[in-house]
Amino acid sequence: MTGVHVAGVGMTRFGKFPGLGVADLGVEAVLAALDDAGLEPRGVQAAYAGHARTGRLLGRENGVGQLVLGQLGVRGIPVAGVGNFCASGSTAFREAALAVLSGLYDVVLALGVEKLSVRPEKGKPLTSDGMEFEGEFGFTPPAFFALVARSYMARTGATPEQFAAIAVKNREHAAHNPYAQYRDPVTVAEVLGSRTVADPLTLLSCCPTGDGAAAAVLVSDRAADRIGRARTVPVRAVSLLSGFGDPTLTGHFEVDRAAAREAYERSGVDPSDVDLAEVHDAFTVTEMIHYEDLLLCPEGEGPKYVADGLTSIGSRIPVSTSGGLLSKGHPLGATGLAQIHEVVTQLRGEAGARQVRGARVGLAHCAGGFLDGDVASSAVAVLGG
Amino acid sequence: MTGVHVAGVGMTRFGKFPGLGVADLGVEAVLAALDDAGLEPRGVQAAYAGHARTGRLLGRENGVGQLVLGQLGVRGIPVAGVGNFCASGSTAFREAALAVLSGLYDVVLALGVEKLSVRPEKGKPLTSDGMEFEGEFGFTPPAFFALVARSYMARTGATPEQFAAIAVKNREHAAHNPYAQYRDPVTVAEVLGSRTVADPLTLLSCCPTGDGAAAAVLVSDRAADRIGRARTVPVRAVSLLSGFGDPTLTGHFEVDRAAAREAYERSGVDPSDVDLAEVHDAFTVTEMIHYEDLLLCPEGEGPKYVADGLTSIGSRIPVSTSGGLLSKGHPLGATGLAQIHEVVTQLRGEAGARQVRGARVGLAHCAGGFLDGDVASSAVAVLGG
Repeated sequence: MTGVHVAGVGMTRFGKFPGLGVADLGVEAVLAALDDAGLEPRGVQAAYAGHARTGRLLGRENGVGQLVLGQLGVRGIPVAGVGNFCASGSTAFREAALAVLSGLYDVVLALGVEKLSVRPEKGKPLTSDGMEFEGEFGFTPPAFFALVARSYMARTGATPEQFAAIAVKNREHAAHNPYAQYRDPVTVAEVLGSRTVADPLTLLSCCPTGDGAAAAVLVSDRAADRIGRARTVPVRAVSLLSGFGDPTLTGHFEVDRAAAREAYERSGVDPSDVDLAEVHDAFTVTEMIHYEDLLLCPEGEGPKYVADGLTSIGSRIPVSTSGGLLSKGHPLGATGLAQIHEVVTQLRGEAGARQVRGARVGLAHCAGGFLDGDVASSAVAVLGG
Repeated sequence: MTGVHVAGVGMTRFGKFPGLGVADLGVEAVLAALDDAGLEPRGVQAAYAGHARTGRLLGRENGVGQLVLGQLGVRGIPVAGVGNFCASGSTAFREAALAVLSGLYDVVLALGVEKLSVRPEKGKPLTSDGMEFEGEFGFTPPAFFALVARSYMARTGATPEQFAAIAVKNREHAAHNPYAQYRDPVTVAEVLGSRTVADPLTLLSCCPTGDGAAAAVLVSDRAADRIGRARTVPVRAVSLLSGFGDPTLTGHFEVDRAAAREAYERSGVDPSDVDLAEVHDAFTVTEMIHYEDLLLCPEGEGPKYVADGLTSIGSRIPVSTSGGLLSKGHPLGATGLAQIHEVVTQLRGEAGARQVRGARVGLAHCAGGFLDGDVASSAVAVLGG
């Protein structure tokens, strides 16, 4: 893909913000993205708002984008809400890219926002849409991914210590990211010693929830020329695929593999050319599995990559340089665009103490739903180069 | 706009179907649209699912499209949920058109589905997102549109009898539409004599709710050539605009006017060339206002157009040939695509006893949210020609 560039990114810090609503969070992220792009709010020609839970939790199933943009005085433009589980923000990014590619718009905003610290129904588990019945019986995402972890361990010999090392690494990265919710270092012993959620996953092996928003301004070639390309980052591919309906627990996700293959094919980027990746590390084990599924390491070598520290900043293929979901938290709709925020920041060389030196190509990956079913999505974007 | 065609449309009958879920409804509509296009399910390359209330009413805020397509064995394609109040289906249609225009896909499905006959919280009014507080005090959509009606009456001299004549006309049209929920004729006296909802709007002046689904298959030039263009209908424009935040009750909707202007400009179609229109007749009064806002009649002549029967089939500019929302019911997400279903059926000359003779150009209009605020949308599509 050519013809689409990220001209600006912005985000709120992720955390629990009882005093802020989705509009407050969204406005902050959009203003930051526009400021970063050097554009006024009135320059936005179309917008997409990604959110996965604002309807059920806040009674805002529609109109979140209009609510945010109206407060900025942006009216009379196309605004659509998009939902796709945890990949809602990634889907908003994709739709914005397609809108630019359509030739109808030169400047399109992608916003992702979520507020998970408000729970109207206390005690109800927060699980994937359509999985409430299973959730009541304990089959929540952590339970599912614990089974996936067991499956992956049986196949590769990965250990809980190696999984824990991912949480440790991501916290090390997060120490340098002012937008991350948790920035204090943790040790392998602390990760393993934290409360068991679903064996082998402990509390610090699971991403926290949170509130937050992130946004990106996507522009056409023409608008990139007008803005000046010094800080624009080309979008090479945005792949989105629904699940394959395979109910077996293989310790891999076929939908992620297919989405990655498509993104590499469309971008013309070889996996070995990727300089950094933000992946959907909702759980420590999933980050390791994503290394393999996204072709960032050879099959079965996830444990070795972690043991050798190859996915830390400064090593072979830095993953979750932002601190990942494990450190930032995971306000569903905001996550995919926060990943874009990090990748763009890195590719511009503006990541400060967490900068990946010489980063030219970055990948962002987000997945949603129960990945072994039909009702799931995987999104992979390749930027830079 | 060129380069996008509707190759197939399908829908369920609208009504109250306690035994059917959104997946059942969606599958029926999608299979009908694919059959109409002469395509197999595996031919779908990308899909959008429009729905406005499945999250809050059914716990399905995400994954509705995947749920439907998975049952048809369609997996591993991009699927996104889109929401935009009552214009959710129209927005799904627009996003599908943009996806084709992006050049990435040749065959894209737009699905709209809703199930309103299930209400988890009995007695709670069903109002627009973010308007629950006002709703508790009685300021629901009928109350708002009753004020709009008063405003329009004051400006134009329109009478409740003229509004009622729209309900009568739409039922006459619906008698010939097997997909309409209510097909029995009604009289002006019956409309005026039905229970008052919000003066001057009576029960039969307001659209019923309901369950239903509708779908369209959109294709590129290349795919249209492959399929054969005998029954494909070109999409000339898909306009979508958010609200302008004007809080005054003027008896007009600026956002609809702007969306219509954009659609006419982009399509190169003059309003006088429109042969039929499906408009958002959620209330009798709004249909009359839409005549003017969509430039289907001169300013202030809505009452005259109704008095003279100029919007009936066989007359100057037939409106709501399907029977409209007033007869079909209004399962939010499905409505916009049901309008496309009707326009395409008419432009192909396949509408049977309700056929508009010589129909070449059709318009579909759907609006969502409280139209006088920011948090609203208007969608106008122009097809054919």
